[in-house]
Amino acid sequence: MPPQFTFSRRVQFSDTDMAGIVHFANFYRYMEEAEHELFRSLGFKIVENQPDGSVVGWPRVRASCTFEAPAFYDDLIEIDVIIARLGFKSLTMSFHFRRGETRLATGELKTVFCRFERGGTFESIGIPQAYTDKLVAAPRE
Amino acid sequence: MPPQFTFSRRVQFSDTDMAGIVHFANFYRYMEEAEHELFRSLGFKIVENQPDGSVVGWPRVRASCTFEAPAFYDDLIEIDVIIARLGFKSLTMSFHFRRGETRLATGELKTVFCRFERGGTFESIGIPQAYTDKLVAAPRE
Amino acid sequence: MPPQFTFSRRVQFSDTDMAGIVHFANFYRYMEEAEHELFRSLGFKIVENQPDGSVVGWPRVRASCTFEAPAFYDDLIEIDVIIARLGFKSLTMSFHFRRGETRLATGELKTVFCRFERGGTFESIGIPQAYTDKLVAAPRE
Amino acid sequence: MPPQFTFSRRVQFSDTDMAGIVHFANFYRYMEEAEHELFRSLGFKIVENQPDGSVVGWPRVRASCTFEAPAFYDDLIEIDVIIARLGFKSLTMSFHFRRGETRLATGELKTVFCRFERGGTFESIGIPQAYTDKLVAAPRE
Repeated sequence: MPPQFTFSRRVQFSDTDMAGIVHFANFYRYMEEAEHELFRSLGFKIVENQPDGSVVGWPRVRASCTFEAPAFYDDLIEIDVIIARLGFKSLTMSFHFRRGETRLATGELKTVFCRFERGGTFESIGIPQAYTDKLVAAPRE
Repeated sequence: MPPQFTFSRRVQFSDTDMAGIVHFANFYRYMEEAEHELFRSLGFKIVENQPDGSVVGWPRVRASCTFEAPAFYDDLIEIDVIIARLGFKSLTMSFHFRRGETRLATGELKTVFCRFERGGTFESIGIPQAYTDKLVAAPRE
Repeated sequence: MPPQFTFSRRVQFSDTDMAGIVHFANFYRYMEEAEHELFRSLGFKIVENQPDGSVVGWPRVRASCTFEAPAFYDDLIEIDVIIARLGFKSLTMSFHFRRGETRLATGELKTVFCRFERGGTFESIGIPQAYTDKLVAAPRE
Repeated sequence: MPPQFTFSRRVQFSDTDMAGIVHFANFYRYMEEAEHELFRSLGFKIVENQPDGSVVGWPRVRASCTFEAPAFYDDLIEIDVIIARLGFKSLTMSFHFRRGETRLATGELKTVFCRFERGGTFESIGIPQAYTDKLVAAPRE
């Protein structure tokens, strides 16, 4: 049986909008929170200082979400996180949002591993083996 | 020459994150602001009360965005809005983000026209001709 | 020894700004989350439908916060919630933010119990005894 | 007649909550937007790189807001900004929110001028005369 990673999130009042439901842009924040919790569980930080003074991180290349049912204030939603693709420089995760058995949404986040230099420039680099070793053991499709 | 619709938006301090750039989830809020400004320019409201007491609106079915370059605090970004597809019940818009000549991101928002009943239920319905007449005259691909 | 209520909150990446710290406006969202968690622990909802079809809730009259030290991404902050004043119609709560022994901020939220009628109007009303009975047993100064 | 500075802001859909009104925490973001627009009009940046490599800015010490009437989606609200106090190291601004003649809220923001060093530490310093010369000419109580 493959491993599973599920992030639980209470819907807060300020996540809702005047339609009485969670504003769609907040699903992207929820995805990021789930992603970071997965990283935390693997012993990673989303931003790491390197010995040479540079910083490495995972900027977003593409994000998408399909909305199936609304989420409401006070809902305790669950987000199943799956590694969809692990490339040489890029990582794509899928997010399955549900409230109990009700499917709410399905999202995807593609990120690229990058080194950031002082001054705001950054370039994609190969994902180090220390990450890939753990990511291949994370929940996958 | 086809019509064009461009929405200008000043990047605010609270739109940024600790990476020093606009947080990716805010691009979805920017898309919505541009969409609503286009609706406003056509004389629509995004939520309309109907004579029968129901409310009609445009819940999201799917949203996506591809990120090409970061946006920074104080940037005056421009978002070109295009009607990508106008269906019987659905509307898909494309959003081209740029700062001057620099392309920042390209997004898409698919919405479905719906009637909301008291109690939180809603169902998709055909887009009335009053809307489609104006939407076909809006900027298109 | 008086009762205590503490709400723990992980600082999320999207809560930070380009200064590398939690944006000050988010402390007000954190206060609300702590307030709602206290209500949840007492068996209340922040918005309740009444038998007569109206809705009762707690709109804000005043909010303030004094900032003593910054909060950072990934911090697990703790917020001690105290009932500062319980009036006939109003409720004032204090919030003490800390990270371990480090004091981060102190906030206050004054709310008034109100009945909301259809159409968006509302008026303040006396707080029912079912609430006050539990609120007097909550942590106090 | 004293000078006046007014910032106009369209209320966006994502600024609202399930109560159908602007979420109270967003009034603090609006204050900041108005503050930055005043700074922009005076030729300042809110964060400035110094010749010695340090950065100067205006972290918040205290913020408060009293709420008098709700703001709604699509409102074009106006915020009058006033310099309430200009100290040696600190600056306090008042913000008067209105929609036409309707008063919505009154807020206050106290900031301290600081130099930020690499590594995240910062200390308050005297506000340079280039700033005070312009700030004394800004709208005052």
